[in-house]
Amino acid sequence: MAMISIRQVKPEDDADIWAILEPMIRAGETYALPRSLSREEGLAYWHAAGNRVFVAEEEGVVVGTYILRANQQGGGSHVSNCGYVTAPFATGRGVASAMCRDSITRATAAGFRAMQFNFVVSTNERAVNLWRRHGFEMVGTLPKAFLHPTLGYVDAFVMFRPL
Amino acid sequence: MAMISIRQVKPEDDADIWAILEPMIRAGETYALPRSLSREEGLAYWHAAGNRVFVAEEEGVVVGTYILRANQQGGGSHVSNCGYVTAPFATGRGVASAMCRDSITRATAAGFRAMQFNFVVSTNERAVNLWRRHGFEMVGTLPKAFLHPTLGYVDAFVMFRPL
Repeated sequence: MAMISIRQVKPEDDADIWAILEPMIRAGETYALPRSLSREEGLAYWHAAGNRVFVAEEEGVVVGTYILRANQQGGGSHVSNCGYVTAPFATGRGVASAMCRDSITRATAAGFRAMQFNFVVSTNERAVNLWRRHGFEMVGTLPKAFLHPTLGYVDAFVMFRPL
Repeated sequence: MAMISIRQVKPEDDADIWAILEPMIRAGETYALPRSLSREEGLAYWHAAGNRVFVAEEEGVVVGTYILRANQQGGGSHVSNCGYVTAPFATGRGVASAMCRDSITRATAAGFRAMQFNFVVSTNERAVNLWRRHGFEMVGTLPKAFLHPTLGYVDAFVMFRPL
């Protein structure tokens, strides 16, 4: 297994990041985002104010990206939130797992006391199992909260992990 | 009991809306917002893009305000979300209940298929009981997800209602 390293984003990473985000957005199966989102809108979403953005590299090639942010403001700002996307050509090689591990380390170091995933699409079983392995527990099920492009209305999960 | 009527917001309602939002924000006990939020920031939050804003009136006096929006984009955009705030001088008179009932009617008419509350502070028992009476069920508990200014870390609830 190749070594996956994770670093903070640089401005010149935008092309690689969009190459990773676009197939996920166009597929519309895992994130609650409009499938027609433009490059500008997609990158603006990823780089939104308050987001820390990271990329995962394998032998100098960007194979994934993730965001880390506070899930709420004010009295809820001690709980973090992340979103992870792996490049289509790099799935099944532990990229998401490496990013999740890294995000837990960084969120803990930043003083967050927990991490929450607000909307894990239930049919994204690989993700659900991965988050469980990384210590996330099921808070509950949002019934039929996601319209999957081929499967119709499916459940989404809220998941949570103390840090 | 006086009649409570609900209408769409007008630009001239901002002073009344801020008079309702400010005590809630300063108290910091129910919404995950910075307690130091300025008038401009508070009104910008309430009037954020995608929010429909309404006010409740009793004998021509604004006694409450609420927002209605999609809770997620894309495949999650059929689930609505609302936030309600009652004027401090008008609590206990059914204002929140009237706003909730109105929001369910309007969300249904707008084609939403469900309504979700992402972050109901557990110590806000009046709200929790009210949402239950209006058909919301508990999705789950976010453990110690809210830092209450006097009670410390308390749970928050995710609640959901099909429409």
